[in-house]
Amino acid sequence: MSLAPATRPDAGFWWARDDLDFRDGRLHLAGHDVGALAETVEGPLHLYSAARISANLRRVRDALAGTGLRSRLYYAMKANRYEPLLRHLAKGGQCGIDVCSPAELDRALACGFAAADISFTGTGVSNRDLERLLAHPDLTINCDGVGMIRRIGERAPGRAIGVRVNPERGASYGGAEKLSYAGDVATKFGIYREQWPQALAMARAHGLTITSLHFHVGCGYLTRELDDWDAAVGAGLAFLDDLPDVTTVNVGGGLGLPHREGDAPLDLGRWAALLAQRFAGRGVTVAVEPGDYIVKDAGVLVLGVTDVEQKRDVTFVSVDGGFNLAPEPAYYELPCEPVACAPRSFETAAWKPVTIAGNINEALDIWAHAQPMPELREGDRIALLNAGGYGSSMSSNHCMRGEFTEMLLPA
Amino acid sequence: MSLAPATRPDAGFWWARDDLDFRDGRLHLAGHDVGALAETVEGPLHLYSAARISANLRRVRDALAGTGLRSRLYYAMKANRYEPLLRHLAKGGQCGIDVCSPAELDRALACGFAAADISFTGTGVSNRDLERLLAHPDLTINCDGVGMIRRIGERAPGRAIGVRVNPERGASYGGAEKLSYAGDVATKFGIYREQWPQALAMARAHGLTITSLHFHVGCGYLTRELDDWDAAVGAGLAFLDDLPDVTTVNVGGGLGLPHREGDAPLDLGRWAALLAQRFAGRGVTVAVEPGDYIVKDAGVLVLGVTDVEQKRDVTFVSVDGGFNLAPEPAYYELPCEPVACAPRSFETAAWKPVTIAGNINEALDIWAHAQPMPELREGDRIALLNAGGYGSSMSSNHCMRGEFTEMLLPA
Repeated sequence: MSLAPATRPDAGFWWARDDLDFRDGRLHLAGHDVGALAETVEGPLHLYSAARISANLRRVRDALAGTGLRSRLYYAMKANRYEPLLRHLAKGGQCGIDVCSPAELDRALACGFAAADISFTGTGVSNRDLERLLAHPDLTINCDGVGMIRRIGERAPGRAIGVRVNPERGASYGGAEKLSYAGDVATKFGIYREQWPQALAMARAHGLTITSLHFHVGCGYLTRELDDWDAAVGAGLAFLDDLPDVTTVNVGGGLGLPHREGDAPLDLGRWAALLAQRFAGRGVTVAVEPGDYIVKDAGVLVLGVTDVEQKRDVTFVSVDGGFNLAPEPAYYELPCEPVACAPRSFETAAWKPVTIAGNINEALDIWAHAQPMPELREGDRIALLNAGGYGSSMSSNHCMRGEFTEMLLPA
Repeated sequence: MSLAPATRPDAGFWWARDDLDFRDGRLHLAGHDVGALAETVEGPLHLYSAARISANLRRVRDALAGTGLRSRLYYAMKANRYEPLLRHLAKGGQCGIDVCSPAELDRALACGFAAADISFTGTGVSNRDLERLLAHPDLTINCDGVGMIRRIGERAPGRAIGVRVNPERGASYGGAEKLSYAGDVATKFGIYREQWPQALAMARAHGLTITSLHFHVGCGYLTRELDDWDAAVGAGLAFLDDLPDVTTVNVGGGLGLPHREGDAPLDLGRWAALLAQRFAGRGVTVAVEPGDYIVKDAGVLVLGVTDVEQKRDVTFVSVDGGFNLAPEPAYYELPCEPVACAPRSFETAAWKPVTIAGNINEALDIWAHAQPMPELREGDRIALLNAGGYGSSMSSNHCMRGEFTEMLLPA
């Protein structure tokens, strides 16, 4: 398979890679025939590759190792919480895990992560949440606001805590506003400079030691957004001057991946070099918590074609699963590339544009508009790429069409 | 409580009504103290009033009765499928029910609706779906496309069917594009004029009798959108000329309700008068299938305040439930009015703008921006109004913060 940019798919699809490509005319993921696997279950299939997940992790770990910095890697569980996937990560000791609710914490523990390898970074944390978190002394808890510092101080004076700050800068995929965690408008996340003295005083008043600094300044960023991201990291690190006890700085997640043809992938070498510059001589461990970057391109959602028909001037391909199984294309404009599992033809010049529609009674339930596809028929299967992150984990039972099977292909 | 438009809440809130208002300083729904009920459960509470649901139904039924037309009312189940709520509707014989998936059909049957009182109006219907639907000969099945007519014909030749058509006109709340089911761009819904001869021929070829005509041309429409809606109904009825066996015409749902101060409620009298004109002399039963209109303003989502604090220049009120419990405010820009369950003061001139934030790790998880509210403190409760439709039914377990209690207040 050529790696050159392709205009014809038989010269290489933009999304193809060693472990995801056609073999004998059929889509394969991690050596498995995607369509054939889907035949073994009824209805929609969320399929994940453990090998790809490990490879994604390894790539980040290697990049971090190349910096010479001490580093830690936490997988952001909210991207995908399928238990076999979590157990795979825990078993390999490949990473720690970041959780954002007590229920996620419980699942991480149940899947084999030790509390010392778990960080909690949540928002709107209730006192009931806190009781459950504070039962684990080794858990890193990043405080999202002054009130959370106070409420921890009242319950566990003297504890070590992390603080999440908001550096008022950030970087998101294509500058998407919906995905902005830090920027011009005050968000709910983290402690702002204006409240910083108050936060430090609150921690002191309760004898809390701030051992970890956290800021999350990106969402889906690629190479083109790295300069913004780097500046945001610099702004976050400015808070470090006031924190003599900090041993770890977590720069959050948000590492992105290509969603469309023409999206250049994130240059991890450059990413790591920027981190190395920013952290040089600071004597702290750098932590990152990617979610999507680890799981998104390791997963495909496989759906069956229920009908193909003309509606006015548009050819609609209806499939047996809707946006409730993977909401990002409909709600966040982050497309999942649709691929026929067994194209009848690879002559892409002859492919015709179709609209791929889900089975939910909402107009926005469209997987792709005007997508060039080979001829498709009732009973065929298509795979939606990049469905491994924020797909099943955000799924709903809207219209009671929420059932699907999950499957992790072993590494 | 005055019904005059109010600038001060003690002169009447815009959302207040006989069964939803303050009594002795505390918010009451259907005679129950909302905050006190929420104290009896842990975490978020979706609370519904059976009396309000019945009143909403009765209002539509009375308006239809006033037309002198034969009429049928189907509740659109996808708006809210809480079983006690469905049983309440079935028990009262107050309406039929419209379902959009086999699982919804099963639930409707389990909750006491007879197949003859159920209509199915789905999209992307698979052959597996069809097997489950066709097991019920009395079920009205509205075919969403030519392919579905064919596939029913192959399995149940001679059956009676409904057809859903797309009149290429529609009306939605404030003209919202995301909610458009029928308009300039070809949608996945219904059969277009271009494919109409083909649809008729297909039904004929399989001996299927078309006894029902369906079109869904609205979403959340209010009085200001009634002219658009009326024109769309007219366009839909044009298909009737080719359908000698049709006994029922279903004009769909989409009846809206006020979301914001200043939204004038739907004038049901005018709505019914327009229907009466359009249907005069046609000799068919008119059917409607409201969802939101029946349940949305009968439900509130009650959340607990976890923290109140300044972030930069904004006061954030954090609550213990996020947009995953009721996605419309975040995704559809349909606000849920936040109301303190026990305001410390009714001097609204002194109320201060706050941002109400959920507990999900996403920037868009904000219930309201710059909302004037009385002083709120940790442990207080707020009710989000208009959460009875497309709230719990679209909820997800995002961040594993998907748990909530549901409760139906008896009529």
